[in-house]
Amino acid sequence: MSDVQNTQLKGSFKLTRVGVRNVKKPVRVSRPGKEVTLVVTFDLFVDLPAELKGSHMSRNLEVLSRVVDEAVRTHVPGLEDLGAMMCQELLSRHEYATRSEVLMSADYFLERGMGSGTTSLEWYVLRASAHSTRGGETRKSIGVEVTGMTACPCAMEEVRKMRNVNSEDLDASITHNQRNVTSVSLEVPMDRPLEADKLIGIIERCLSSPTFEILKRTDEAKVVINAHSNPKFVEDVVRDVLAEILTEFRDLPDDVCVSVKSESFESIHKHNAYAERDTTMGELRA
Amino acid sequence: MSDVQNTQLKGSFKLTRVGVRNVKKPVRVSRPGKEVTLVVTFDLFVDLPAELKGSHMSRNLEVLSRVVDEAVRTHVPGLEDLGAMMCQELLSRHEYATRSEVLMSADYFLERGMGSGTTSLEWYVLRASAHSTRGGETRKSIGVEVTGMTACPCAMEEVRKMRNVNSEDLDASITHNQRNVTSVSLEVPMDRPLEADKLIGIIERCLSSPTFEILKRTDEAKVVINAHSNPKFVEDVVRDVLAEILTEFRDLPDDVCVSVKSESFESIHKHNAYAERDTTMGELRA
Amino acid sequence: MSDVQNTQLKGSFKLTRVGVRNVKKPVRVSRPGKEVTLVVTFDLFVDLPAELKGSHMSRNLEVLSRVVDEAVRTHVPGLEDLGAMMCQELLSRHEYATRSEVLMSADYFLERGMGSGTTSLEWYVLRASAHSTRGGETRKSIGVEVTGMTACPCAMEEVRKMRNVNSEDLDASITHNQRNVTSVSLEVPMDRPLEADKLIGIIERCLSSPTFEILKRTDEAKVVINAHSNPKFVEDVVRDVLAEILTEFRDLPDDVCVSVKSESFESIHKHNAYAERDTTMGELRA
Amino acid sequence: MSDVQNTQLKGSFKLTRVGVRNVKKPVRVSRPGKEVTLVVTFDLFVDLPAELKGSHMSRNLEVLSRVVDEAVRTHVPGLEDLGAMMCQELLSRHEYATRSEVLMSADYFLERGMGSGTTSLEWYVLRASAHSTRGGETRKSIGVEVTGMTACPCAMEEVRKMRNVNSEDLDASITHNQRNVTSVSLEVPMDRPLEADKLIGIIERCLSSPTFEILKRTDEAKVVINAHSNPKFVEDVVRDVLAEILTEFRDLPDDVCVSVKSESFESIHKHNAYAERDTTMGELRA
Repeated sequence: MSDVQNTQLKGSFKLTRVGVRNVKKPVRVSRPGKEVTLVVTFDLFVDLPAELKGSHMSRNLEVLSRVVDEAVRTHVPGLEDLGAMMCQELLSRHEYATRSEVLMSADYFLERGMGSGTTSLEWYVLRASAHSTRGGETRKSIGVEVTGMTACPCAMEEVRKMRNVNSEDLDASITHNQRNVTSVSLEVPMDRPLEADKLIGIIERCLSSPTFEILKRTDEAKVVINAHSNPKFVEDVVRDVLAEILTEFRDLPDDVCVSVKSESFESIHKHNAYAERDTTMGELRA
Repeated sequence: MSDVQNTQLKGSFKLTRVGVRNVKKPVRVSRPGKEVTLVVTFDLFVDLPAELKGSHMSRNLEVLSRVVDEAVRTHVPGLEDLGAMMCQELLSRHEYATRSEVLMSADYFLERGMGSGTTSLEWYVLRASAHSTRGGETRKSIGVEVTGMTACPCAMEEVRKMRNVNSEDLDASITHNQRNVTSVSLEVPMDRPLEADKLIGIIERCLSSPTFEILKRTDEAKVVINAHSNPKFVEDVVRDVLAEILTEFRDLPDDVCVSVKSESFESIHKHNAYAERDTTMGELRA
Repeated sequence: MSDVQNTQLKGSFKLTRVGVRNVKKPVRVSRPGKEVTLVVTFDLFVDLPAELKGSHMSRNLEVLSRVVDEAVRTHVPGLEDLGAMMCQELLSRHEYATRSEVLMSADYFLERGMGSGTTSLEWYVLRASAHSTRGGETRKSIGVEVTGMTACPCAMEEVRKMRNVNSEDLDASITHNQRNVTSVSLEVPMDRPLEADKLIGIIERCLSSPTFEILKRTDEAKVVINAHSNPKFVEDVVRDVLAEILTEFRDLPDDVCVSVKSESFESIHKHNAYAERDTTMGELRA
Repeated sequence: MSDVQNTQLKGSFKLTRVGVRNVKKPVRVSRPGKEVTLVVTFDLFVDLPAELKGSHMSRNLEVLSRVVDEAVRTHVPGLEDLGAMMCQELLSRHEYATRSEVLMSADYFLERGMGSGTTSLEWYVLRASAHSTRGGETRKSIGVEVTGMTACPCAMEEVRKMRNVNSEDLDASITHNQRNVTSVSLEVPMDRPLEADKLIGIIERCLSSPTFEILKRTDEAKVVINAHSNPKFVEDVVRDVLAEILTEFRDLPDDVCVSVKSESFESIHKHNAYAERDTTMGELRA
């Protein structure tokens, strides 16, 4: 049977990634103590050898659909586990591929409160991925993206100098503060459980302050005071998150990849301030 | 000659807007004292009568191209004038249309300084539009979008209360501040000149503070102090802009449409605060 | 008790819309035969009289949270009904407001198949809104956005002419086809039920062809043949949808607002082709 | 003098990238035979050692401003050269940094015609970058992004089979075609000249067809016929671009990085088809 994709090529080039992007699908995962429906955007790729004209992309959609259905029955705990299952299935369906890769992102929500009784459902982004090598291992990564707040330590100090006040004397001084988006990603072998909620908690502790959708007036004041008591550069946020990860995930082996990024939508500038560290658990410990 | 678009229909519906969206084109306009190259995104529409199957959309591109070329020769002063010329040309080329409309947006830059000598080229967005009725008038509107800063008056007051300080006693207290985007649009008859730079200046005076790309440390402190001396809700920003427009453009007639919007990317929330007024000069004066 | 928002102003301006934008929240609605979780993005506004400094925006978040919780208990059938409930609650909480407005959008999924057995979960967007006037009525609108395919009738005809083939003789000729996004919005009084799924079905019948995530090779050929047997301008899509709405919703009164938009991401151009009709059921019947 | 950024840390972590993102600035470069104004979006980063609390980000803006001014005087030929100059200046201003990096993107336009006389200014995107190591070399990369058209060879074949026509007998059969975005990036040492226009030309030859803003009806038919005579998977586009690069840039050394990506906004699906190759000139030649 003729099949355009199966056409044999001579003298052509292998391809690093061939597949589909921007497939949207609702997915059910079993988070701690609850079932959660996520609306996930997927990218699914395999590589392609030099001698094959085309990849059978419809198989990627079939893999996606089958694994998502299976997840409902088997109570898959996380998006990253779903991705890992898809990677293995992709290699089994694309017999010519040596590598598969799945990227996922979804809005996610957790209940949060200030301690004064009012709670709200706060918005986060989950970013998971997985990749698999034929005959090798499958690795998965779980990432979270948290919107919070940073208050600038430098402008705070400059205002104090300008007003001739001693920084020991006084409550925190005025400074610029702003919306910040910080993200973490951890990449581990298939058999390691990972907990997105824990990563969200870490980031929220490392910002100048987490933010909240519903704030009574006194709670609003407390968030402002809290943020000014914890002035942070984006550099500080990234380093504090790295330190917490070292402690909280101390059992993770040296080859685990870690990436932390923090971006502040500066209130005094039209551009953003940004800091990033891409590393491994081993390097962090060194 | 057969022509699918010219096919005559019976019992069909007229259409409000038919045309092309997202056409990008570099344009030269003659701003005060300088020639400026803008990279403009255009939408161009006409209406379509019920009995005609299709609009000849390629004419929209020809009109766009011709008017942009002509602008170089004739030193067109503003994007909105270019749009008005296109609207008239659209009606002349689409003999079946009774109405034409052109929307435009472009990045724009002005030199700004804090007074201490350092200046930087600050980024703004121009949004212009024009529409024309066959046998009626052509109206044009010029809009600007300015990124600046707001500091919240409510949290400032709550922090003072919580700390038991009298608001008369003290320099401005800490509060949350954040990036804000405020925009203005004015719609006037064809023969009225309009000055985008003046609208940008108005918005910058009405924010808690304008923002700057390059800030020496002492200038950074001054921007922070300035913003905290002018705490503003989005509601305040919109109203202050309206008041300045009433004064600066007092010669504009009653039927001129005015729209002012202000959105703060709240540092203490994940959502945005927003205020808007859509009105006319006549209503503002009432 | 002092309260910055309650500060009384003199000689200021009323505001058309004050509130919050881009609040994300998971919502459960009771669609026909199933419970569906939607991740919804909300904007909530009220107007503000000239003499009041600020709107109490935290009330918008409280209203949102309460109505979303209530929806779980009371099995609210649609996003637009949720919006209408919020509009009424907003007026009750903002005693100074005369008008309230809620905008909503969410990804949505329906199972679809080609008839050959394979089905897939297809992606759509729901866009709902509601607005309420104090002492007046509450109106709600339901909108859907469908991604599908158009094939150009004009290029098809031109290719035939160039090849000297008679259009009666032949299977459909080659032409450019492309991704198209078509949307419909219907605005009705509070007590009218509306069915988003029906609107999605209408749009899918009016495109050159609906599109599918999973297509076996022969199904892929059928979609292509189907699209080329139904070549459509964006003008045709809008008009055909209007005609179907007139038939399917013939019981809707004359004052119901209807809006239909269709945008083709032209494969032969870098820009998009666009058509739109904003009207009422009464005008369509005239 | 105290300076928060200069605070010495113990036991902290170095950072991979610290700097500013999303700075917009108009830039003049000297393209072949003409001066061009580009509106460029910049990201500028350096690394940060473990013992230093903060990076002096305002220096990034000063470097950007100075190099852009200098470019006007010295007629810098390309965006990538500007980036390379900035990288070297960043290392000189951030005495603690060992690495600097600049990313740039801008809309770009070239005149194009079908040969029938009508020409139009077509839209492209330039993506340039540069990075520098202290005591090591500076490398720059020039990238282009081209919007064009692909027609699917697989659906074409399936339609022929379904209609029982022999592929040798007939003019190209109907198939789905769609908007495609293909990009190339080449990374070379500082002293190598690179020509973006040449890369744009290569991509346009490798698509099923380039696209045009203004098309007379017969030209529209020619584009459609041309695209159907060159049906291409995204895999084909990437490989054909790689082959042309091997020929056109045969003098580039083995360590030059090459990246080619192609994404089709499938007309028959709601998702996109994607292919990518990340490699070096040396690997391509092997």
